[in-house]
Amino acid sequence: MAGLPTNGDADTKEIDMASVSSSKRHNQYFDVHHKVGVPSKQNLFKEFTHTVKETFFADDPLRDFKDQPSSRKFKLGLQAVFPILEWGRGYNLNKFKGDLISGLTIASLCIPQDIGYSKLANLDPQYGLYSSFIPPLIYACMGSSRDIAIGPVAVVSLLLGTLIQNEIDPIKNPVEYRRLAFTATFFAGITQMTLGFFRLGFLIDFLSHAAIVGFMGGAAITIALQQLKGFLGIKKFTKKSDIISVLHSVFGSMHHGWNWQTILIGAVFLAFLLFAKLIGKRNKKLFWVPAIAPLLSVILSTFFVFVTHAEKEGVAIVNHIEKGLNPSSLHQLYFSGDNLLRGFKIGAVAGMIALTEATAIGRTFAAMKDYQLDGNKEMVALGAMNVVGSMTSCYVATGSFSRSAVNYMAGCQTAVSNIIMSFIVFLTLLFITPLFKYTPNAILASIIISAVINLIDYEAAILIWKIDKFDFVACMGAFFGVIFGSVEIGLLIAVVISFAKILLQVTRPRTALLGNLPGSTIYRNMQQYPEATNIPGILIVRVDSAIYFSNSNYIKERILRWLVDEEEKRKKLYRPRIQFLIVEMSPVTDIDTSGIHALEELYKSLQKRSVQLALANPGPVVIEKLHASHFTTLIGEHNIYLTVAHAVSSCSPKVVEEA
Amino acid sequence: MAGLPTNGDADTKEIDMASVSSSKRHNQYFDVHHKVGVPSKQNLFKEFTHTVKETFFADDPLRDFKDQPSSRKFKLGLQAVFPILEWGRGYNLNKFKGDLISGLTIASLCIPQDIGYSKLANLDPQYGLYSSFIPPLIYACMGSSRDIAIGPVAVVSLLLGTLIQNEIDPIKNPVEYRRLAFTATFFAGITQMTLGFFRLGFLIDFLSHAAIVGFMGGAAITIALQQLKGFLGIKKFTKKSDIISVLHSVFGSMHHGWNWQTILIGAVFLAFLLFAKLIGKRNKKLFWVPAIAPLLSVILSTFFVFVTHAEKEGVAIVNHIEKGLNPSSLHQLYFSGDNLLRGFKIGAVAGMIALTEATAIGRTFAAMKDYQLDGNKEMVALGAMNVVGSMTSCYVATGSFSRSAVNYMAGCQTAVSNIIMSFIVFLTLLFITPLFKYTPNAILASIIISAVINLIDYEAAILIWKIDKFDFVACMGAFFGVIFGSVEIGLLIAVVISFAKILLQVTRPRTALLGNLPGSTIYRNMQQYPEATNIPGILIVRVDSAIYFSNSNYIKERILRWLVDEEEKRKKLYRPRIQFLIVEMSPVTDIDTSGIHALEELYKSLQKRSVQLALANPGPVVIEKLHASHFTTLIGEHNIYLTVAHAVSSCSPKVVEEA
Repeated sequence: MAGLPTNGDADTKEIDMASVSSSKRHNQYFDVHHKVGVPSKQNLFKEFTHTVKETFFADDPLRDFKDQPSSRKFKLGLQAVFPILEWGRGYNLNKFKGDLISGLTIASLCIPQDIGYSKLANLDPQYGLYSSFIPPLIYACMGSSRDIAIGPVAVVSLLLGTLIQNEIDPIKNPVEYRRLAFTATFFAGITQMTLGFFRLGFLIDFLSHAAIVGFMGGAAITIALQQLKGFLGIKKFTKKSDIISVLHSVFGSMHHGWNWQTILIGAVFLAFLLFAKLIGKRNKKLFWVPAIAPLLSVILSTFFVFVTHAEKEGVAIVNHIEKGLNPSSLHQLYFSGDNLLRGFKIGAVAGMIALTEATAIGRTFAAMKDYQLDGNKEMVALGAMNVVGSMTSCYVATGSFSRSAVNYMAGCQTAVSNIIMSFIVFLTLLFITPLFKYTPNAILASIIISAVINLIDYEAAILIWKIDKFDFVACMGAFFGVIFGSVEIGLLIAVVISFAKILLQVTRPRTALLGNLPGSTIYRNMQQYPEATNIPGILIVRVDSAIYFSNSNYIKERILRWLVDEEEKRKKLYRPRIQFLIVEMSPVTDIDTSGIHALEELYKSLQKRSVQLALANPGPVVIEKLHASHFTTLIGEHNIYLTVAHAVSSCSPKVVEEA
Repeated sequence: MAGLPTNGDADTKEIDMASVSSSKRHNQYFDVHHKVGVPSKQNLFKEFTHTVKETFFADDPLRDFKDQPSSRKFKLGLQAVFPILEWGRGYNLNKFKGDLISGLTIASLCIPQDIGYSKLANLDPQYGLYSSFIPPLIYACMGSSRDIAIGPVAVVSLLLGTLIQNEIDPIKNPVEYRRLAFTATFFAGITQMTLGFFRLGFLIDFLSHAAIVGFMGGAAITIALQQLKGFLGIKKFTKKSDIISVLHSVFGSMHHGWNWQTILIGAVFLAFLLFAKLIGKRNKKLFWVPAIAPLLSVILSTFFVFVTHAEKEGVAIVNHIEKGLNPSSLHQLYFSGDNLLRGFKIGAVAGMIALTEATAIGRTFAAMKDYQLDGNKEMVALGAMNVVGSMTSCYVATGSFSRSAVNYMAGCQTAVSNIIMSFIVFLTLLFITPLFKYTPNAILASIIISAVINLIDYEAAILIWKIDKFDFVACMGAFFGVIFGSVEIGLLIAVVISFAKILLQVTRPRTALLGNLPGSTIYRNMQQYPEATNIPGILIVRVDSAIYFSNSNYIKERILRWLVDEEEKRKKLYRPRIQFLIVEMSPVTDIDTSGIHALEELYKSLQKRSVQLALANPGPVVIEKLHASHFTTLIGEHNIYLTVAHAVSSCSPKVVEEA
């Protein structure tokens, strides 16, 4: 027997006996009989709870709570909300060493960044520092990522600044502007907590990776362009963020608005920062060089300006940072009127974007160190930290890409590194802020430019181009939307294209013609396996998606089109007319009433053409619904097979040779 | 060899030779080697055109134009826009007989319905008749359905009435109201044409069958309740359409607002109409009884009122219908100002709903008579008819369920039956309208009630309940939304639930554990086939969806959870530790950058746990992208198999027995 390809077809083992006896080509079968399984009907409640569980509790968060006494449950519950209670007990000196070093490193990085980012949000510099003091403390108690570094970030600062200045002018009405910023921060936190608490975290998955890459890259360029104001020492600068307005502003003021002293200081230190970055990139062990370069630049340039009094030559300086800790801002939140609604809208958008960034960071590092992260719990922690932040003069904080990477490389062990950073910021606020008086704005611009450059992930964009062209369109759409339009427009494009992709996926699922791999009972896509061959008189189509209302009609018509096309082709080759249509249902995971309707229509159309419909390997849900709707009775139980091979070997002998 | 189930595993034929020699359990292989096919790389342009074609031209509308001389192409193009040029040439007396009878039948049905439905739209009765004169003529030239009967329908009339009266009061400002109605009709037509022309017809598929059943049922009950005004002869009636306001109106006026003469006339004729319906249902040959019953009722009741002068007893009558043909309304359309925007919004909604109804009808009858219908071309025809209609004093017309069914049963052959109907309406407008003066409103109410009852498809609702519980929720949501809220709320609920279902589908795809069907090399879902068994040391998971950004993270985490769960189970049974994880990729039709990212993370997590990842049967698109992203190199080409059986027989011998 060995060597004869038609023998011992394992795939067709459990053919029904009638076809076995009528078949001449397939005459060896093992005596094993498997029928298409119809799962025992679940009761409604079970089905419902199962769906709810898979949708909202896919990660099974209550696993540990099972079969525990209630005192233990309380303890576990407390630990679930404050993970610090869990990992804090195993904390030791060794871990502290790692956390201390990484905490100091990210503190030195965050202080100059905070001062710069708060300008993006049109807020005074101290608000950036405030946001690096309280939120990291809250996160350290409630969060479960060990590597994320919390604080203000460039993109969210820019987004917040743009959205709020659409409503209130930050120069004319600084107090109202600030109040709206806190209100937006409050609602950003509430949005994040709500999403986490109701386990709707998966909603942020709807922003595709490609769209985020494009959006981030565009935002980085926009932010860098905005820095030209500080970098070139321009006084009159556009309020718009699109590239055309900005370049117009820049070159319009070239002859009388640029300040060469500012440019000199800025350029020297930008070169220094970029060189430091290069060193860090070349040698991973020298990660601390780019990490402390910004603070070093600030110190050096401040000292330089202080000594030379360059501010009298028109070099813009920070001038004043409020000394002291975060004042309370609870009474400043808007809880009524138009500004409540505005704050809510802006907060919801900024909160979602902040979540996207934090979640991506959390996941990346959790995968690198292989620990589990409960996305929904993380959202609650981030939300709580922003709600508390909004009451203590902070604006939206989240996880920062650049600082988290430094944190990781500096060897952080736990969220204690955030506490260390927070402590350094605390000392800065108390004692050092007056020293920033002579810090030139150009340095802050250079620091921001060198920081956001990392967000332009052109390698990812190239990979996206290689892998998926549609994704690339989404990526570029978001990118150019941000650059030529505004942050909101870019975001809108990203969301719309992401959704369009989902809709396209569900309305236009793939179908494929299957052929037999010679010498086997395997049936595969004929486009992928050119060696696969047709079976005379039989057409095999695989449907690659659940059949739902959104695609049922397309699937029906597409199958009929395959039939017409193939019939034409075979007619030309004088092959027998197609008499059986086998639909491979393996990938069809579900079907709804519209889908069954479409199958019925398909069946009727085929009947009119004297083509017999057969189904192969319907899944558990599908076969149950086909039974419930009596479709199985309509086409006949015997026309439903366990495998394609099985269906072919049953139909093939019945094919009649016609003209 | 025969009878030994482990022999001759066809599914595992092309195992690589290394594993063959190391395997002791699987020692018989045929010498056929199939590798996982990597399709030859298509160039970008081809790929792009293919996607565009499948998305917008799935039905290949230009098939006939291929390889034709240009004169023939022009002729075909003309025929494509005006199908009457094609079927008109084969028209004969025999067909005309069928069309004449069916045209007369639907005319007798449409005249009383038109008068009633125009009241639902808060328009004077003649506008209903106008809409049954011009639009059917246009459709007959441009449409390709042979069975659809065109004219005003109950649900669209109600929807239009509700939406417009939210903007303009029909009693205080009848002229503005009418102008807005025509403007909305114009934009309904434009919307329909646009959707058809840009081949976006699939968008209406996003309203699920279940949601439509619920919406139609709710609208039918709302319409029937509204008729209580005419049926009971109530003068003061609420303008709201929800059941609570209506019943409040009805019972609030019970003691002084009801008119017994009206009720008597209405009840007698309603009983007659329902009885006629019953006869038609019992005996399909008597379809004409319910079809002419309405006109008969109108004639009888009008005569009765004329003779008895019941209108003096408080029986409300139609009183006046404008005589003459459609006046032009082109100059009445709003092309500027607020009303332009309002008209556009209302028109877009009404146009979409009208399309949904017409498309459903068209498809149903096309399937019954087995002819092809180009959905997008149909939309252009329906749109053109409404655009022309809006300029000739018509409001939104579409295909009517009840009249199309009668048309079909009366033996219509072509769209000529619509022309006949249109001609009868033409005669009616010219000569007969004054005769309707004494027609009691109660009769119109009875006719509408008996017509809309058919829209309550409780059998479909029961079937939906049986098949898909989630669909049932959508159905009931739309139903109760219309009844207790309003038509718009019901529609909104229907759309939102339909979309929620799509989103749920793409974020939470199913995954399944596969087991071996004893004595075969078939691997099937263990939940569906309880006899399927585990393979020691190997876990097989099937992913039942394309892996996209919206679900990649879920899929990764779900697979890891399967692994943890199974490991616990097997540990308890002292089975070997799971050392191989085989992911069956057959249903994974596509993957994007986020999906590949998730696979990489999965691979890393598995490496940390010393579990080897293997893939079985990736499709053409997937394998191409895995190659492009070098994922295949990461996990090793040899870990990608043609079938699960193949993967198992390669991995199984490598499983090490541990504690």
